[in-house]
Amino acid sequence: MTTSISIFDTTLRDGTQGEGISLSAEDKLKIALKLDALGVHYIEGGNPGSNSKDIEFFQRIKQYNLSAKITAFGSTRRKNSLAEHDTSLLRIAESGVRAATLVGKSWDFHVHTALQTTLEENLSMIYDSIAFLKRNHMEALFDAEHFFDGYKNNPEYALSVLRRAEEAGADWIVLCDTNGGTMPTEIHDIVSVIRRELRTNIGIHTHNDCELAVANSLAAVQAGARQVQGTINGYGERCGNANLCSIIPNLQLKLGYEVLAADQIKTLTGTARYISEIANVHMPVGQAYVGNAAFAHKGGIHVSAIMKDSKTYEHIQPELIGNKQRILVSELAGQSNVISKAQELGLDVNANNEKTKQIIDRIKDLEHQGYQFEGADASMELLLREAFTEMKEAFKVESFKMLVDRDSGFESGPMSSEAIVKLNVDGTYVYTAAEGNGPVNALDNALRKALVQFYPKIEEFHLSDYKVRVLDEKGATAAKVRVLIESAGKNSTWSTVGVSSNVIEASWEALVDSFRYALLHMDKVEPAPVETLERAGLVNQ
Amino acid sequence: MTTSISIFDTTLRDGTQGEGISLSAEDKLKIALKLDALGVHYIEGGNPGSNSKDIEFFQRIKQYNLSAKITAFGSTRRKNSLAEHDTSLLRIAESGVRAATLVGKSWDFHVHTALQTTLEENLSMIYDSIAFLKRNHMEALFDAEHFFDGYKNNPEYALSVLRRAEEAGADWIVLCDTNGGTMPTEIHDIVSVIRRELRTNIGIHTHNDCELAVANSLAAVQAGARQVQGTINGYGERCGNANLCSIIPNLQLKLGYEVLAADQIKTLTGTARYISEIANVHMPVGQAYVGNAAFAHKGGIHVSAIMKDSKTYEHIQPELIGNKQRILVSELAGQSNVISKAQELGLDVNANNEKTKQIIDRIKDLEHQGYQFEGADASMELLLREAFTEMKEAFKVESFKMLVDRDSGFESGPMSSEAIVKLNVDGTYVYTAAEGNGPVNALDNALRKALVQFYPKIEEFHLSDYKVRVLDEKGATAAKVRVLIESAGKNSTWSTVGVSSNVIEASWEALVDSFRYALLHMDKVEPAPVETLERAGLVNQ
Repeated sequence: MTTSISIFDTTLRDGTQGEGISLSAEDKLKIALKLDALGVHYIEGGNPGSNSKDIEFFQRIKQYNLSAKITAFGSTRRKNSLAEHDTSLLRIAESGVRAATLVGKSWDFHVHTALQTTLEENLSMIYDSIAFLKRNHMEALFDAEHFFDGYKNNPEYALSVLRRAEEAGADWIVLCDTNGGTMPTEIHDIVSVIRRELRTNIGIHTHNDCELAVANSLAAVQAGARQVQGTINGYGERCGNANLCSIIPNLQLKLGYEVLAADQIKTLTGTARYISEIANVHMPVGQAYVGNAAFAHKGGIHVSAIMKDSKTYEHIQPELIGNKQRILVSELAGQSNVISKAQELGLDVNANNEKTKQIIDRIKDLEHQGYQFEGADASMELLLREAFTEMKEAFKVESFKMLVDRDSGFESGPMSSEAIVKLNVDGTYVYTAAEGNGPVNALDNALRKALVQFYPKIEEFHLSDYKVRVLDEKGATAAKVRVLIESAGKNSTWSTVGVSSNVIEASWEALVDSFRYALLHMDKVEPAPVETLERAGLVNQ
Repeated sequence: MTTSISIFDTTLRDGTQGEGISLSAEDKLKIALKLDALGVHYIEGGNPGSNSKDIEFFQRIKQYNLSAKITAFGSTRRKNSLAEHDTSLLRIAESGVRAATLVGKSWDFHVHTALQTTLEENLSMIYDSIAFLKRNHMEALFDAEHFFDGYKNNPEYALSVLRRAEEAGADWIVLCDTNGGTMPTEIHDIVSVIRRELRTNIGIHTHNDCELAVANSLAAVQAGARQVQGTINGYGERCGNANLCSIIPNLQLKLGYEVLAADQIKTLTGTARYISEIANVHMPVGQAYVGNAAFAHKGGIHVSAIMKDSKTYEHIQPELIGNKQRILVSELAGQSNVISKAQELGLDVNANNEKTKQIIDRIKDLEHQGYQFEGADASMELLLREAFTEMKEAFKVESFKMLVDRDSGFESGPMSSEAIVKLNVDGTYVYTAAEGNGPVNALDNALRKALVQFYPKIEEFHLSDYKVRVLDEKGATAAKVRVLIESAGKNSTWSTVGVSSNVIEASWEALVDSFRYALLHMDKVEPAPVETLERAGLVNQ
């Protein structure tokens, strides 16, 4: 019989302790719905006693009928007081959730130093608080903070903390490696002991300070823990919490535990990327399982082998978790990479072709200048289509100009940005000026204004991300920069690149490539009669 | 007696397979010197048979007298040929290195599919190639590619591969988890078996596809492996190689192995950051041990405890590996964070102060607008000094203007960028215009030109990094952006932030903060007589 593991997601609580992560109530709602679709069993929403955002979240989430249990988080009652008088515990009971996690001290050092109370009072705080939840008919999870440090320092006391939570009726006892300093073998040994000492189900909550949070979670499960607490993409304080995006497939696809349904785990990559967008944190390309490079192949020899059988260099089928294989083009690679990329696009290419050699030289030269096509598939596709097909350019840029102005002092009103663009669209000269909320927006607006008469569908896509990377830091503010623009249409996204020592020029280049790529797949319409356009101030012939 | 572990760094070879990483021969040389100072035992420089960059590296590194052994990388000889006729092996022998790693197949499936030869011929290829190195008086390391997948599929054959390498005289047999799909318990079990079967020293080489490369390296060492292969910051193909920056402190500070000297391991953080600069890859703030947030504290309760005893929330003393504690200021934190930050700066602050409440509200409001002070210590310091001291502003911006122009078509000459800036420096109005290589550079130049007469020392600092982050992607090209600027002086670096929907304005704001911060620590000099400045076109009174 397969063992089931319960997944407890704390992205909305512990995850928001991560540097640079801040979620509104609306963001939290969106993330909770996505987590529920993924199939996690618990979603910790936050602390209803701590701030208005969390209170709003608990209020609004009630209207949804989720499969996952929404849980609240709080601490055991204050020292030398009654649970019934503890504002934070009362707020949890009032929040309407069916389950709550309470964190308590299990390291005697912390009881003395941080809590500044007696060991006995700490035990009472734990007992009273868990019993309070049970009297309020709630599922109670006890988070034993610093459990492993505590156990190593004073095993009797650490164990007595867990026993007291068990006596009070805790439904889960969660062992926390709060400082993230414990080794997998220690986790395995200690969880094995605790498993024998308690009747209550055990959970594991680890942090990534030694880059071992995933391994520590697996070691605990292999020693008998039945719940794993973690966050999507490993968000969390310092080095982050245990990353559920790695733990879930490791447990299910590698170690044979039952975690999610097969059609749910297929949404893992999409869920991870969606949440990174909402959290506004860039996902590392090399993130295990769900990263954009997790199944990307660069080396020439690897790519040849992958073409024969993907099992040669892929540890699982990427489709199982909703990811996919990518072939990267780079100067390290032989021509086999460029050829397989071109074949992916359905272009008629072979190794002996003179054009193939030319385009490989061209790509090497551009990479030497600072271009990077690994993250700019659309610019790459444009290069390959130019080389191997009779690609017709939808438009040609004749000139452009940019004026940014701020008349008054530093702290007064917004600046004006004005772009003037001249295009040649199939023989028709179009001359437009547009303002914008910043220079890139002004250029975007001017370009759209010029092209929308010919390609009305350009209104369906927009720029969705904009990155600037300084290439040569020694150049200081004069350094070359690389701009990557990601654009999103109705059902697809594409990325383009521009390089220049002028951030406006690099942005313009990536912007133009994005439009060129979008127009590849759009039909030109007959523009309105020239008189109309002239009236609209759009055309000069 | 303490067991010693040998560290084999392959940043310069396997690390360069990572997406977005490309190193020149000069870069490789700088990194090798830094690795040698850290104290790693082997530095794999690349493949002297594969490209001119690697050939140049092996040539130039000879002039340095390193403690680390420089090693070359290559494959076993081609099938059905002689090692003596193999160009790649000959190049290795000619490169002048004393040690080399040869990779060979140990998974029968790969012998059939990728190599397309017989199992027996593969064994001969391994034997002949290792024997060739030994005849050339070199130290020989055999990398058993896909060893764990191979062993699970056909243990007899996988073992016979290792035996043949041993018979040929291999000095190290390195077991590779090439696809990164093996679990720590499997690694431990298989290495334990192999340890009993071989006399030769065993090494471990893992990849991070399951976020387990560090754990897998530790499991192998605990099962008897005596060499760990990995890369700085975990650079490498797909999800990366095993990260030496986590493995080294885990082995030495947690598990008691002898790896580096105490004064060497203190350079770990500096080494990791230096190499990320050279490789031009942004280091994740949350990277274990060496990341900027690895010992950063945000939650209000954590910060109060940390102030009492840092052991409460830190698993090691950050100084042991050259990192340091940071207190982050954020909306999640209570006033204790702001107070401890102010105290860090030597400002006279306490919790009951009305000013303290005002500045906390101000910071919350700015964070709400999109500012982020966690990555912009200098802007934070300016805010706090403004609030708590009689800070005198070195200058005031009256106005600025920016013109970017491109007259001709898309693929012709560079664009011009021109900035016009009007400052009030202590009552003197300074009006300057400057060109630049891009608009930020033009603004930087105009600002410098205006201020250098008063503060000649501003020539000693420069912008060292420039980041742009789109805050609200739904806003497309009109979205608000946050600009972070890092500046570097003689002995320090500082970061400043600007937010606007106009990338020029946000850059300008961060740039001005960077100058304001730099000028805090500079003395104003008497400017040259006004006539001189007027002749230089710098002053209008």
